[in-house]
Amino acid sequence: MTTPANWLVSLAALAIVGTAGAAEPLASWNDGPAKQGIVTFVAAVTQKGGKDFVPEPERIAVFDNDGTLWSEQPIYVQFVFMLDQLKAVAPKHPEWKSNAAFNALMAQDKKALAELGQKPILELLAVANSGMTVGEYDQSIRTWLKSARHPQLKRPYTELVYAPMQELLAYLRANGFKTFIVSGGSVEFMRPWAEQAYGIPPEQIIGTQQEVNFAMRDGKPVLTRAPKIVFVDDGPGKPIGIYRQLGRRPIAAFGNSDGDLQMLQVTAAGAGRRLMLIVHHDDAEREVAYDRQSHIGKLDKAWDEAKAGNWIVVSMKSDWKRIFAFQK
Amino acid sequence: MTTPANWLVSLAALAIVGTAGAAEPLASWNDGPAKQGIVTFVAAVTQKGGKDFVPEPERIAVFDNDGTLWSEQPIYVQFVFMLDQLKAVAPKHPEWKSNAAFNALMAQDKKALAELGQKPILELLAVANSGMTVGEYDQSIRTWLKSARHPQLKRPYTELVYAPMQELLAYLRANGFKTFIVSGGSVEFMRPWAEQAYGIPPEQIIGTQQEVNFAMRDGKPVLTRAPKIVFVDDGPGKPIGIYRQLGRRPIAAFGNSDGDLQMLQVTAAGAGRRLMLIVHHDDAEREVAYDRQSHIGKLDKAWDEAKAGNWIVVSMKSDWKRIFAFQK
Repeated sequence: MTTPANWLVSLAALAIVGTAGAAEPLASWNDGPAKQGIVTFVAAVTQKGGKDFVPEPERIAVFDNDGTLWSEQPIYVQFVFMLDQLKAVAPKHPEWKSNAAFNALMAQDKKALAELGQKPILELLAVANSGMTVGEYDQSIRTWLKSARHPQLKRPYTELVYAPMQELLAYLRANGFKTFIVSGGSVEFMRPWAEQAYGIPPEQIIGTQQEVNFAMRDGKPVLTRAPKIVFVDDGPGKPIGIYRQLGRRPIAAFGNSDGDLQMLQVTAAGAGRRLMLIVHHDDAEREVAYDRQSHIGKLDKAWDEAKAGNWIVVSMKSDWKRIFAFQK
Repeated sequence: MTTPANWLVSLAALAIVGTAGAAEPLASWNDGPAKQGIVTFVAAVTQKGGKDFVPEPERIAVFDNDGTLWSEQPIYVQFVFMLDQLKAVAPKHPEWKSNAAFNALMAQDKKALAELGQKPILELLAVANSGMTVGEYDQSIRTWLKSARHPQLKRPYTELVYAPMQELLAYLRANGFKTFIVSGGSVEFMRPWAEQAYGIPPEQIIGTQQEVNFAMRDGKPVLTRAPKIVFVDDGPGKPIGIYRQLGRRPIAAFGNSDGDLQMLQVTAAGAGRRLMLIVHHDDAEREVAYDRQSHIGKLDKAWDEAKAGNWIVVSMKSDWKRIFAFQK
């Protein structure tokens, strides 16, 4: 239920955004409770003198990446990249033949991958790229992204970002928010393309961290990759990563799976008005439908908590006019 | 030597900044090669169409904190805070009586502290504050800062920031730079006051990291401190911290001691125009004079490298009209 006064504020907020960006903010969102919840929240925290006003520096919004900002099915994009990387160096690592993570990846065994969790899998990749300089590794990701294509959609992965979420990011920034990615994936894998895809610069990406070392080579300083994962930014790791790197409690958090639960809980636990939102993958026709039983992006506990806490649950099917930007 | 053309550009840059901030940018800097070097660099990288132009998102400037932005003598401010914290809980830790770091701290033995390095000392503090929530720890720092006073200057530590560096930070930001702190101290110790003192928000502070854990307490999510240092952001750690959290190579770096050497080297090694600057503490009258022989803030190798690489070395005595803002 929205009061007439709130409506006026919402319209004013829309008008401001309208001048800053595209023709209409949130153009890919159908009118409904999800869009209304977002607009009402933004109007409330940006209204000077209002009881819910939040100063600009504290308007921090955090977004999960896989399944929230872009597709994560049939398998995390970073895992596809890893598959290619691992295949290339596997001849040098006969010990991998008895490595559970390696075998699960090669077989694309989603159940086994889910049971293993991200850490042993990312550790394999850490071994595979160990010794590379950070510049070489960055280049290998850029090169791979240029040629890699989604198996069903036959498009570059960087086109599989959700248009409604791109609009949401722009809408929040136009209203003085600072937007961050907080992902279980490795931070290096997102940096090369997140600025163009989401308008999020490298320094606003929080992710899983591999060890790097400093060395002088031929009189030049270089950072090289070491075969060790030093921080896993997933589940309870997400609020820890936010605390370490960001140092403020977000006032808005966006996720799609149980891996985002603790980030959403910490956001919800702050004082003042808050926005917690979960993207529900219920559109088998335009994307993939999955939730409680899925091995990738399982949405179970976080869904229950969303219902109990009146968080916004976005139906991709009914709340979004389109999923991807290439769907006009 | 500055060509007339460069002078014109510099004057134009000064004019732009003049409208954005205080009456005159860099007002506490004497005219001389240091100020001229800064202004010429900023003019070059901000001149659209110029050969040294750098787009705004890549204008990253990193600043050491202790000894570069505020005083670090007679002992790092965080060590003074730690002394008070450790004294308070020492009765619970009889094992500390044989701990070298504890004894060096209690005796304020600068030579022993320098030989130990920051890690064992910060580890002691980590034990002392273990179990506190991050909110409680933050509050303990704020409370301490309110009452603590510098032993000689008798002023709150947060007044001991260098006015010329505050002006430099503002000048860079007015020219489209994003400014970061990269400190050997712990990130939590800087966050409560850096925004007011330097205009640098919590999410742009990189520092030494203590482990934190996530837990649910009475149905509320909390982060608590664990007795372990997981990352030391000093020396070679600084470019690693920058890589992890920032993900871009800075184009300008500011330090004062050998602990900043690798950060300066990595900045210098990038392509295009760069600014590397070292603050030299040579003003015994208005602050403290120290360099190659000092236990705190030793400036030796980095000074040699500055001379060899034509980095700017600021003489606090002759380049700065005043040191602190309270000196009118």
